[in-house]
Amino acid sequence: MIQALLVADPLAGTLALLALMWIAAKVGGEIAVRMKMPAVAGELIAGLAWAAAVKAWPGSVPDIGSNASMDLLGNLGVIVLMFAVGLESTVPQMLKVGLASLRVAVLGVALPMGLGLLGAALFLPKGTPLAVDLFIGACLCATSIGISSQVLKEVGQLDSAEGRVIVGAAVMDDVLGLLVLVAVSGIAAAATAGTGLPLGALAKTLTLALLFLGLALTLGRFATPHLFKLADRFRSEQLLLPLALGFAFFLAWLGNRAGLATIVGAYAAGLILEPAHIESLERRERHSLEDLVHPLVMVLAPLFFVLVGAKVDPAALLKPSTLLFGVVLAALGVVGKWVAGLGAGKGFRWTAVGWGMVPRGEVGFIFVGVGDALMIHGKPLLSPEVSAAIVTALLLTTLLGPVGLGWDLRRTATPNPSLSRG
Amino acid sequence: MIQALLVADPLAGTLALLALMWIAAKVGGEIAVRMKMPAVAGELIAGLAWAAAVKAWPGSVPDIGSNASMDLLGNLGVIVLMFAVGLESTVPQMLKVGLASLRVAVLGVALPMGLGLLGAALFLPKGTPLAVDLFIGACLCATSIGISSQVLKEVGQLDSAEGRVIVGAAVMDDVLGLLVLVAVSGIAAAATAGTGLPLGALAKTLTLALLFLGLALTLGRFATPHLFKLADRFRSEQLLLPLALGFAFFLAWLGNRAGLATIVGAYAAGLILEPAHIESLERRERHSLEDLVHPLVMVLAPLFFVLVGAKVDPAALLKPSTLLFGVVLAALGVVGKWVAGLGAGKGFRWTAVGWGMVPRGEVGFIFVGVGDALMIHGKPLLSPEVSAAIVTALLLTTLLGPVGLGWDLRRTATPNPSLSRG
Repeated sequence: MIQALLVADPLAGTLALLALMWIAAKVGGEIAVRMKMPAVAGELIAGLAWAAAVKAWPGSVPDIGSNASMDLLGNLGVIVLMFAVGLESTVPQMLKVGLASLRVAVLGVALPMGLGLLGAALFLPKGTPLAVDLFIGACLCATSIGISSQVLKEVGQLDSAEGRVIVGAAVMDDVLGLLVLVAVSGIAAAATAGTGLPLGALAKTLTLALLFLGLALTLGRFATPHLFKLADRFRSEQLLLPLALGFAFFLAWLGNRAGLATIVGAYAAGLILEPAHIESLERRERHSLEDLVHPLVMVLAPLFFVLVGAKVDPAALLKPSTLLFGVVLAALGVVGKWVAGLGAGKGFRWTAVGWGMVPRGEVGFIFVGVGDALMIHGKPLLSPEVSAAIVTALLLTTLLGPVGLGWDLRRTATPNPSLSRG
Repeated sequence: MIQALLVADPLAGTLALLALMWIAAKVGGEIAVRMKMPAVAGELIAGLAWAAAVKAWPGSVPDIGSNASMDLLGNLGVIVLMFAVGLESTVPQMLKVGLASLRVAVLGVALPMGLGLLGAALFLPKGTPLAVDLFIGACLCATSIGISSQVLKEVGQLDSAEGRVIVGAAVMDDVLGLLVLVAVSGIAAAATAGTGLPLGALAKTLTLALLFLGLALTLGRFATPHLFKLADRFRSEQLLLPLALGFAFFLAWLGNRAGLATIVGAYAAGLILEPAHIESLERRERHSLEDLVHPLVMVLAPLFFVLVGAKVDPAALLKPSTLLFGVVLAALGVVGKWVAGLGAGKGFRWTAVGWGMVPRGEVGFIFVGVGDALMIHGKPLLSPEVSAAIVTALLLTTLLGPVGLGWDLRRTATPNPSLSRG
């Protein structure tokens, strides 16, 4: 009995699972790299293969897709990744590409929405509520910052002008996506209740999100130096990383209170933190903050990407009827986001920007999760077939995005490097 | 509704809690350092203060002591810490101090057990089953490797001869403690059932534990270079840290299957991994493995120490009757472990070794948890008062240990540094 008590440490199972996930991620990444694709695409496919194995041998392969511990660690991974991405830029650098990002973001919401409506009109039976068409469009609007950031990191172009436009546009997309989601949900609710559109809720959502971003980038920038100067007066050691991460996590929490995804707050924290604020602490600890954050990203981010793949239902991918609808939606989604890259304007490699906006990733899957819970006229808004088709489309864009971006960056990097800086 | 769905991301609460815990740990550590105590003692007290705040304002202060996410991260913290501790030594170095460690470990189990029996005989009413006395003694035998390792790290003496003896003896203590626990539980079960002692179970426990350690340190040492040579043929990057951690977590899992605490397996993995096995990967990634592991320890280990403090019931500490018994047990426990330092023999600063063995920490608390679940003659083995007294004693040794070790290492470091290497 005691023996059982001691042996059955539930943590031990988690440790074994982590070891297996790292191996899966690294093997998947290696295969992708050998096929000249970004490692992150291989990690996504490793997750997919894991999900297929769970389906094939239920009970004997652990289902990481519904494991709370892995969820926590994977989510921490993408948050730390976005903090690290933010650290590589500063607020002035982002403002410089702000207009280009805004154009890409707005086009990147309008075009996929329009094309998504078109696809829905072609495939869905007559009499389907408009809210369903709108929701399909909304799912195609999302952009996953995590995946493109990882590709940009892999090829060392996170601090290129295109890298900044992509990341900036993806952050703005998060605000726009939030609005679209609230609007579509409101339309579904209004259609059911027979009332008007919830304009008040929309205005409140937008105000809160913009207020958070505005305050973080202004007030936050003034407060941060004081915060780290205070820490510098401590005599104990190993302060920089826990305090910087604590700062990022606090902003992630605060941004989430304002309705934004936690990754947006973490990215804002990275943008705000500038080398000058922490150089004394970095000297004391003999490591730069980026050097200290990097190992955390290395360990946690692959878990996130494997999980994104593992959360997909492989059966949904293989049904011919939904597969065709899904492929069409994916094609429309890729074209919409890719053309949105034109919004970057002159002096940018617009095709790279467009590819960078293609992956929908976790954001799209969150949308589907919300849609699955929405009701209209007493019935679920999304039928299982429509839901599966959207998932297929999201998955295809999530896989095509990093492959296209990696290929485009390599293609355009050599011939005309002078264009790579805005 | 949607707004609520998006805002109520449970991860956001975890992020805010992590930020608060890091601040608590760092402020506690700073106060301790200014009082010339090791930072880890301050982190433990910060956890205690948190537990007191939860008690004082229930519902408004989050109870980190029973939070599954924090448990996971804290436990990963101590496992990564022990892996890092293992990395700083090699198997031959540990074998060199093996006999000294073994003497300290055996004395460190025999003396506290004897003194614990004495204390129990003095304080417990007549007619108390022998199993209770033995269990109290068993709780005083445990040694927390985590806490003393952290102190040794803080003062930069982890690779001193005394540091190695302490860590080696603490690992052996884990095996011995496991045996004592199985023996005491067996005695309680035998007393209830009126049967003989479970010698077979004892033999099996010892064999499994020794088999794991033996195989890990022999077979593991031969297999590891091949494993990392294989990884070196990969073309993708960022392999070293995930694979090394995966290796450590795998051994932690395997050791746990053999009945050992997960930290023992992680420590063994660190011992086995030698610079020569990974130098090619380290060159490719331009960072040493220790540099890569260090940030993980920095971020996760403080969570563990705050949690050890936060899991204590502050009310149990303040009851006068149990307080006196607890203080006496603590005094006996400190003396027993401290004198055990003499086992190190000539050429070692035995007082430092003794202090290093004093903290009971998480291991002792695991014992109490097991004891609380044990029954004898149909009644719980430990009464609430005895349980609270043991917790008090564990807590006092856990706080006194790092303070005493820090003080002793500073005291003995300067006058005769030549003695510090065996």
